Amino acid sequence: MKIIHSINKLQKELRRGRKKGLPVGFVPTMGFLHEGHLSLIRRARKENKVIVVSIFVNPAQFGPNEDYKKYPRDLRKDAALCKKEGVDYIFYPAVKAMYPEGYSTYVKVEGLTENLCGKYRPAHFRGVTTVVSKLFNIVRPDTAYFGQKDAQQAIVIRRMAEDLNMGIRIKVMPTAREKDGLAMSSRNAYLSPDGRSAAPTVYRALQLAGDLIKSGSRDAAKIKSGMRKMLSAAADKIDYISIVNPEDLKDVKKIKGKVLVAVAAWIGGMRLIDNIEVKA
Amino acid sequence: MKIIHSINKLQKELRRGRKKGLPVGFVPTMGFLHEGHLSLIRRARKENKVIVVSIFVNPAQFGPNEDYKKYPRDLRKDAALCKKEGVDYIFYPAVKAMYPEGYSTYVKVEGLTENLCGKYRPAHFRGVTTVVSKLFNIVRPDTAYFGQKDAQQAIVIRRMAEDLNMGIRIKVMPTAREKDGLAMSSRNAYLSPDGRSAAPTVYRALQLAGDLIKSGSRDAAKIKSGMRKMLSAAADKIDYISIVNPEDLKDVKKIKGKVLVAVAAWIGGMRLIDNIEVKA
Repeated sequence: MKIIHSINKLQKELRRGRKKGLPVGFVPTMGFLHEGHLSLIRRARKENKVIVVSIFVNPAQFGPNEDYKKYPRDLRKDAALCKKEGVDYIFYPAVKAMYPEGYSTYVKVEGLTENLCGKYRPAHFRGVTTVVSKLFNIVRPDTAYFGQKDAQQAIVIRRMAEDLNMGIRIKVMPTAREKDGLAMSSRNAYLSPDGRSAAPTVYRALQLAGDLIKSGSRDAAKIKSGMRKMLSAAADKIDYISIVNPEDLKDVKKIKGKVLVAVAAWIGGMRLIDNIEVKA
Repeated sequence: MKIIHSINKLQKELRRGRKKGLPVGFVPTMGFLHEGHLSLIRRARKENKVIVVSIFVNPAQFGPNEDYKKYPRDLRKDAALCKKEGVDYIFYPAVKAMYPEGYSTYVKVEGLTENLCGKYRPAHFRGVTTVVSKLFNIVRPDTAYFGQKDAQQAIVIRRMAEDLNMGIRIKVMPTAREKDGLAMSSRNAYLSPDGRSAAPTVYRALQLAGDLIKSGSRDAAKIKSGMRKMLSAAADKIDYISIVNPEDLKDVKKIKGKVLVAVAAWIGGMRLIDNIEVKA
């Protein structure tokens, strides 16, 4: 396994495999890898010959008052995990290499980025789609792997890849969870002990919604109100509890077909997000 | 030569050449080809093995009151010209293929798109960079060719290709001109006879600026005022007369080093643009 910092060097390395027609699987991450990332890597490993994992804490997707600086980082541990999983290349660029002086190009997916997290993190998805465009162009993978935990992100990236004719398959893998249901996230490392105990309530609220829908509830407002009651006990603040159409991410009033139930809430000083898809 | 409408089909065709490592040259156009386009095609022909010309009047780069509908089109004549120049593929997609229902992704270069034409055509460059991103992803050329007549466009696209790590060389070829100096443009076809007679004044005003700078003038305001006097006699309306830094397209007051002198003016019912680069 090679850890590569330079864009040019990575491209040169990857050109070799491409000439031989070897399929390239790509897992873009911000590092501090957990079981969720590893499940993406394992799937990529199964389906490709060359595996690239990028580790880049992307400043463009953090708001001015967000946790860019304190986002957890541990390249050594990440490298060991990647090596164990059979990754071929870790791409670990500097911020200056990705956004050199004079940088001015941004990729934006409209519509899909306005609801859910987009409402609370106004420039977030523009930062995500911009960096993922760059990474896709650098790596030129056949398939890229994302986690369902960031459902909106996955939907936005799939839209972008299709709209811009990137010719890259986007695969979305199930959310990895702790035993108590908490969705794995690099940010969980920063939960206070009390926060960590309260955090699984997010998933329990989602499960409540799932159970209600499965047992015939169709009124989204009623379901969300039940979730809110449950979540309010554990969360310091709730950004949103939403039931949306997984195609256009628009709020659903009367549940019909497949819906995405999504939550963002502040617990123990951290903003946690989670979601489930449910079919009525 | 093949005329291809389908994105998938073109990609399949191009995959063959790419496997053999044949360099691909790409000339994106809106059709109604003139000598300016042909000079790009000839250069592409010289430097590559596979030549793709796209013909697509891109609705996303026209404002609501602009000439999208009446933009001149003549595929038959264009095809004959391309064939004569040894083009391998004309890519001629339908609007619905490029912007299917639900389309929502846009690429934007900030900063460089705010001055000059960007001021008068607010969504224009976003439309250009979006469609060029798509075309680049579809064709995956080694080199793409643009005309200096659309200087701002060329600078914006070069910035985009670099920022997004597209790995595509952008070559900019000199403006092709009629004998009387008028910059060639597909839109010239729609000039009234009076307009056609008056139109070369645009280039003469640029030449005046060039002469003044070459002979030692350094005060941009003074030069522009001389140009305005000359141009006012011929133009119905002047959008801008600008002297800018060709790197960042910001207005220059005191001329030093290389500058871009650029004009947009309405003559005979058409909006004409032209520019020259001058070194002080």
